[in-house]
Amino acid sequence: MPYLAIVTALALLEYVGISLLVGRARGKYGIKAPATSGDPVFERTFRVHQNTLEQLMIFLPSLWLFGTYVSAVWGALIGLVFIVGRVLYVQGYIADPEKRGMGFGIGFLANIVLLVGGLIGALLVLVTASA
Amino acid sequence: MPYLAIVTALALLEYVGISLLVGRARGKYGIKAPATSGDPVFERTFRVHQNTLEQLMIFLPSLWLFGTYVSAVWGALIGLVFIVGRVLYVQGYIADPEKRGMGFGIGFLANIVLLVGGLIGALLVLVTASA
Amino acid sequence: MPYLAIVTALALLEYVGISLLVGRARGKYGIKAPATSGDPVFERTFRVHQNTLEQLMIFLPSLWLFGTYVSAVWGALIGLVFIVGRVLYVQGYIADPEKRGMGFGIGFLANIVLLVGGLIGALLVLVTASA
Repeated sequence: MPYLAIVTALALLEYVGISLLVGRARGKYGIKAPATSGDPVFERTFRVHQNTLEQLMIFLPSLWLFGTYVSAVWGALIGLVFIVGRVLYVQGYIADPEKRGMGFGIGFLANIVLLVGGLIGALLVLVTASA
Repeated sequence: MPYLAIVTALALLEYVGISLLVGRARGKYGIKAPATSGDPVFERTFRVHQNTLEQLMIFLPSLWLFGTYVSAVWGALIGLVFIVGRVLYVQGYIADPEKRGMGFGIGFLANIVLLVGGLIGALLVLVTASA
Repeated sequence: MPYLAIVTALALLEYVGISLLVGRARGKYGIKAPATSGDPVFERTFRVHQNTLEQLMIFLPSLWLFGTYVSAVWGALIGLVFIVGRVLYVQGYIADPEKRGMGFGIGFLANIVLLVGGLIGALLVLVTASA
């Protein structure tokens, strides 16, 4: 299923890009490791990175469950929505934490569709196999 | 292997539920993003969420290794033990950090069984294939 | 593909080992949960654990993409480089945060090779299938 693989790799490249933003902010605002606070823009960038890690833990398995039990093509398309949502989240949050809602919401909604859809698809396989 | 898929989805739904607890605590105790401290109950909820992320990074791959190389049914059952252990961990930790031990221990033990069992199963496949 | 499974399990055992270092540092320096600061060596150990979580989120999917679309044997070997890089990172960072660069760099480079290689491999499968 190369579609799911390609979307997986794109989401991880986005995550690597966000980690580079954290490293750059660390240098720019003079926050020496292991500190993770001391400047508001650094702290927002750090939280954006952390939150993306949290969302990827839901996204990647859910993408593959949905792709396996429902549809690889639809899974990949919803996966692209997640990736775009994260771009909006990063831009919104770093500009102003109050503006993080829309980007977060788009990514979260994509995750829930993949997760609940994948669960239903797997349950249907189980029910069909037992029938 | 729908058993492993279903347990994966249930563990992720539990994790989404814990993230909603963090959001609710953020509102209830007035901790504005990007802050992650300022109230003891918020801080416990935040740590519970973070620790669950850390445990899921071990749990999900180990579940699938064990399910692939040892037994999907047993893997799924041990996975359910992990999910129940996390419920006890959340309840214990938020009530009192000193009470986090049992729930943590149950989930951690389930993870170690899946991880070490999966590794042994994969090594046996390698040895058998070479024999 | 038992090679990828074995490297996955070894990387997770290393991560479990690092989590035990955090627990030991928590006891040794008297940092009571949910606190995550209060002693420089504890804070470094905590950050080492957190950073390893971040890198595993890239490493594990990339290892399997590379192993599936490029080469399981080469994927596993590059995976071992990641695991060794993490050992150097842990030792360097806990001794002195300024010494974390080399170990981090080795693991990060391994991740990028697996991720970009896996993406290219998946794209080639897509192009070949369309041709």
